Amino acid sequence: MRASVFHGKGDIRIDDVPDSKIQHPADAVVRITHACICGSDLWFYRGLENWQEGFRTGHEWMGVVEEVGPEVKTIKKGDRVIAPFAFSDGSCEYCHKGLYTSCVHGDFWGGKNEGGQAEAIRAPYADGTLVVLPPSVEGDETLLTAILPLTDVMGTGYHAAVSSGVKAGSVAAVVGDGAVGLCGVLSAKRLGAERIILLGRHEARIAIARRFGATDVVPERGEEAIARVQELTGGGAGCVLECVGTKDSFDTAIGIASPGGRVGYVGVPHVTESINLGRMFRHNIALHGGVAPVRAYIPELLADVVAGKLDPSPVLDKHVNLDGVPEGYAAMDGRGAIKVMVKL
Amino acid sequence: MRASVFHGKGDIRIDDVPDSKIQHPADAVVRITHACICGSDLWFYRGLENWQEGFRTGHEWMGVVEEVGPEVKTIKKGDRVIAPFAFSDGSCEYCHKGLYTSCVHGDFWGGKNEGGQAEAIRAPYADGTLVVLPPSVEGDETLLTAILPLTDVMGTGYHAAVSSGVKAGSVAAVVGDGAVGLCGVLSAKRLGAERIILLGRHEARIAIARRFGATDVVPERGEEAIARVQELTGGGAGCVLECVGTKDSFDTAIGIASPGGRVGYVGVPHVTESINLGRMFRHNIALHGGVAPVRAYIPELLADVVAGKLDPSPVLDKHVNLDGVPEGYAAMDGRGAIKVMVKL
Repeated sequence: MRASVFHGKGDIRIDDVPDSKIQHPADAVVRITHACICGSDLWFYRGLENWQEGFRTGHEWMGVVEEVGPEVKTIKKGDRVIAPFAFSDGSCEYCHKGLYTSCVHGDFWGGKNEGGQAEAIRAPYADGTLVVLPPSVEGDETLLTAILPLTDVMGTGYHAAVSSGVKAGSVAAVVGDGAVGLCGVLSAKRLGAERIILLGRHEARIAIARRFGATDVVPERGEEAIARVQELTGGGAGCVLECVGTKDSFDTAIGIASPGGRVGYVGVPHVTESINLGRMFRHNIALHGGVAPVRAYIPELLADVVAGKLDPSPVLDKHVNLDGVPEGYAAMDGRGAIKVMVKL
Repeated sequence: MRASVFHGKGDIRIDDVPDSKIQHPADAVVRITHACICGSDLWFYRGLENWQEGFRTGHEWMGVVEEVGPEVKTIKKGDRVIAPFAFSDGSCEYCHKGLYTSCVHGDFWGGKNEGGQAEAIRAPYADGTLVVLPPSVEGDETLLTAILPLTDVMGTGYHAAVSSGVKAGSVAAVVGDGAVGLCGVLSAKRLGAERIILLGRHEARIAIARRFGATDVVPERGEEAIARVQELTGGGAGCVLECVGTKDSFDTAIGIASPGGRVGYVGVPHVTESINLGRMFRHNIALHGGVAPVRAYIPELLADVVAGKLDPSPVLDKHVNLDGVPEGYAAMDGRGAIKVMVKL
C-alpha cells in the first residue's frame, strides 16, 4: 500500500509501505477515505522536532473498516469510522475520566505508529478509539467534510474554549487564526460567548472567523494587540484561547486576559524562556488545557454536525489526493492554505 | 515614630520616621501591636528585587485603631483590626468578585507605602481593607498569635489549596516547607484532603507539618522527589500546592501532579527559563493561583481560629520586638527561623 513518509526537513514523500494488518486482537484495519494535514505537522516538517527519516505522517483520518481483531466488540467490517488524533484503550483510569490523551496504553498516530495520510491504517484498541458514524452520512461528501475536522482541529479548538471557561455571556478572545483558532471561535460561539475577539490579520481567515461568530478582529500584534484588547474589553477578556504555542502567543494571551481570567491553551508549547508568569501571578490568571482529549468531545460535536448545527468545514480550504500530500505540506508551510484535506 | 526601613541588601534598620497620619478621608491610622517578617521579604532582603533605599518594610500586621478619616464607616477608634497584606477599596469590580489583590485602587504595604514593621501605619481604604476582631480576643496573646498569620501566610497557603482544587478525599502534595507550605498543609486538611504529602527535610518543619495533617513526608528533591511521589500516589497527586516560586519548585510541582491534575501556586515566581510546559500540555495539568486575595479568606478562617478549630501559630517560631527586626530577617535568611513574629 502507499503512505506518506517523512524523509527530512521539508521532505515528505508518498512511499510503498507494508500493508496494514491486524497485529493484536483489539486492532482494526481501516481503509482511509479522508485525511488532513495539521498545523502541528509543520513542527516536524520544519525540522523543529526530533523526527527520524521513515516516520509515518498524519493523525487526522476517517475511513471504512476492512477487518477487526477477535476482541473487537463495537466496530465491524464495513462501518464508517472517524478517529481522534490519539488512540486510547477506553478502559483505563484516565479514559474513564475522559482524559483519553493520557491513556496508559495510548499514543498518537504517525511517527513510529502508522499514520493517517495513507491508504490504510492499523488502529489499536479499536473499541476505545474509533467512533462509528451513522449510515446516513454515507455518500454525503459535504457532510463528511464537515465531520472530518472532529478528528483534531474542531475538538482541539473546543478544548481551548472549554479550558478557558467559556459559558453563556462570556467575553472570549482567540490568539491564533489557524484552523484551531478558527475552530476556537466556532466553539466559543457554540458555548454561548457574547463577544468573540479574534487576533488575526489574514483576510480569508478573518472572513471565516466572522462567519464562525467573531464579533471583533484585532490585527495588531504583541504589545499593541494587548493594548487594543484591553481597551476593547475594559480590562481584558475573561476567557482567552491560546491556539499557537509560542512564547509570544502565550504572552499575548496572558496580556489580554482579565484579572481572575483563564487562558485555555492547546497550541503545542515550543517555549524556552519563561512565559509571563509575573502577570499571571499578579492577577490570578489561570492556565488550563493541553493536548485535547478529542475522543471525549466527538459524540456531542458529531451530533451537532449531523444535525446541521455545526460546520467547521470552511477551514479545509485546499483539497488534494494522496499524491498531493507533499504539495499540501508546502502550501500550509507557506500559509497558502489554512488546512489541507486529503481525499483518497 | 519608629519603623523598619530597607537600606540595601541585607541591611534593615529601625529608623525614626514621620508619624503616620490621616491623609485621605477613607484612611485609618492604626497603632501596631503585632507584625511578622515574611518569606517573601527575603527576596528584597537578598537584593533580588528592585528595592530602593528608604523603602518601608512589612506587610503583615495587627493593631488598634487610633484615628479614622471622615469617610470611614465600619471601623472606629479603639477597634482591634487585622489587615491583609494588600489594601483594597472594597468596592471595585474585582473586590466584588473577591479578587481584592487586583483592586483598581489597591497596593501592598511597604515599599513606597507605609510598612507594618513599625509602631503605626496609615491604612488607606480602611473600610475595604481592615477586619475588626471580636472584643473577646483582647488580652488573649495565644489567640492573637493564632490570628496573626491570617494577614498573609495562612490565607496564602489556603489560596494554594483552594487553587489546587483540594476537596474532601483529595490527594494533595505540598512543595515548600516554609510557613506558607506548612499553612498549605493545614489548609488541605481543613478542606478535607485524605492524603497530604509534604516535600521537605527540615526536622522542626516536618514536625509542624505532621501536627498540621501531613500524612507523608518526602525528603528527596528534584527528579528523585518526583519519582517518589509518583510511586507513593500511583501516578501523581491530583492537587499540588506550589509554595516556593522557583523554576525547580514549579517543575517539581508539575512533575508530581497527576494527569488532569492542578497546581495551585502562590510562591512569587522568580523564573527566567520556561517551566515544564511540555508535561503540563501532555497531561492537561492546570496552573491556578497567584497572589492570594487574603482579604476574601479572613472572615471564614478567623471564625475557625476564634472557635479554636484552626491554629497556624506554630509557624511563628521566633518572637522579637521592633529592635529585633534586623535580627529576625537574618534568622529567616539563614533558615534559623521559619517565621518571625514582631511584638511591639
